[in-house]
Amino acid sequence: MTVFLVGAGPGDPDLLTVKAARLLQRADVVVHDALVDDRILDLVPRTARLIDVGKRPGARIEQASINSTLIDLSSQYACIVRLKGGDPYVFGRGGEEAQALLAVGAEVEVVPGVSSAFAAAAAVGIPVTHRGVSPAVTVVTGHRRDGEVEVDWVSLAKAGSTLVVLMGVAERESIAVGLLAGGLSPDLPVAIVERATRPDQTVVRGRLGDLSRLPANPPAVIVIGAVAALDTACYLPTALQRCCTELAQP
Amino acid sequence: MTVFLVGAGPGDPDLLTVKAARLLQRADVVVHDALVDDRILDLVPRTARLIDVGKRPGARIEQASINSTLIDLSSQYACIVRLKGGDPYVFGRGGEEAQALLAVGAEVEVVPGVSSAFAAAAAVGIPVTHRGVSPAVTVVTGHRRDGEVEVDWVSLAKAGSTLVVLMGVAERESIAVGLLAGGLSPDLPVAIVERATRPDQTVVRGRLGDLSRLPANPPAVIVIGAVAALDTACYLPTALQRCCTELAQP
Repeated sequence: MTVFLVGAGPGDPDLLTVKAARLLQRADVVVHDALVDDRILDLVPRTARLIDVGKRPGARIEQASINSTLIDLSSQYACIVRLKGGDPYVFGRGGEEAQALLAVGAEVEVVPGVSSAFAAAAAVGIPVTHRGVSPAVTVVTGHRRDGEVEVDWVSLAKAGSTLVVLMGVAERESIAVGLLAGGLSPDLPVAIVERATRPDQTVVRGRLGDLSRLPANPPAVIVIGAVAALDTACYLPTALQRCCTELAQP
Repeated sequence: MTVFLVGAGPGDPDLLTVKAARLLQRADVVVHDALVDDRILDLVPRTARLIDVGKRPGARIEQASINSTLIDLSSQYACIVRLKGGDPYVFGRGGEEAQALLAVGAEVEVVPGVSSAFAAAAAVGIPVTHRGVSPAVTVVTGHRRDGEVEVDWVSLAKAGSTLVVLMGVAERESIAVGLLAGGLSPDLPVAIVERATRPDQTVVRGRLGDLSRLPANPPAVIVIGAVAALDTACYLPTALQRCCTELAQP
């Protein structure tokens, strides 16, 4: 009856919203991406159906096929959760799925999640905005998709906001070329965060001029801007909680 | 002992993270902003101290004074929650508070929250990015603060990303002037969202050329870009849940 487009957040199950956690526990069927952490899927009761529609290299699932699956399920179940990494309306193609469902008269609601773009930076102590350093933050995809508007890296460089690039590992050389052409300094700090908020998260810090040579494996979040040199308070994955131990488990 | 810089999300208590909800229930003291919903503060046990440091017109509390309060509390209590609307590292000045605390040797952790910038748009059915419409989103403050870097609205306009302006109601005329000077069309869709994800949320839609004349009261989130004309699935505040009623309460 109702399809909930739900954000799973950046990784740590504790960064699910209260509403997302409740929906997962009550769902009849959960349709999820590859980026969703197994510990989050463990919240789904065994009586519910789990459908993996993750887009992986070599086993590509078309968006149209995901839309059809959701439409089919919307007439079969009372509570359908479409679970996406991060936030469903920030590069999650949630808008497209919502439109496809609304077009056939299905009921759809969106449940925002913690965006991986901001949380990946926070996880390693980087505030994406900071007074006197950056008055704006731009989140952009580095992945070139069919039908996507081309990103104007030169203009983005001139705007001077912190840049957070999602899905940009493979394209990081051309991204750096565009940003340098737009006037950004090769000395501008950058950080590449992998598996953010998970117990095995990593960060590599460097400079924009070296971005293409920094080690990185997708999926990763790339932060570009003066804030990337900041090293303030981090997120501590609950699995590694160092203090207030009693807070770690309910 | 530990100060947790915690995001309260956009308003609805159900959009707290699981970790934020747990910390509020176990905190010894909660230091909160004016933007945090009363229903969220109701989660704090009566035995805990609640300290309101909300910055309101006419009763201004300086940031330095908030930092001092947090430093004092960090030596008095085991679990201190500094609760901020939205996400603490997205225009929340969380980075500054973290730096002040780390400078005196206090333990600090950040707990990301659902950003009001993205959730306010989602709440009224606007995905901030959408394939074929916008490949990027920029979140920017419209509020001019001491020590803040000036926002280059002309360059932002040229970058072509969706713009989400926080704290921009009072400055919306000059923002529109800058964006129009940067080449954006006066016909570009805009939306002004107030009290997002709360039962009394409102949205006004219009065009960039009319932005200064659209009714708006702070705090509001202004979305500027072609996506602002989209009307896909909304967030439904739990208080108004129309279906799956059994999901509304645990």
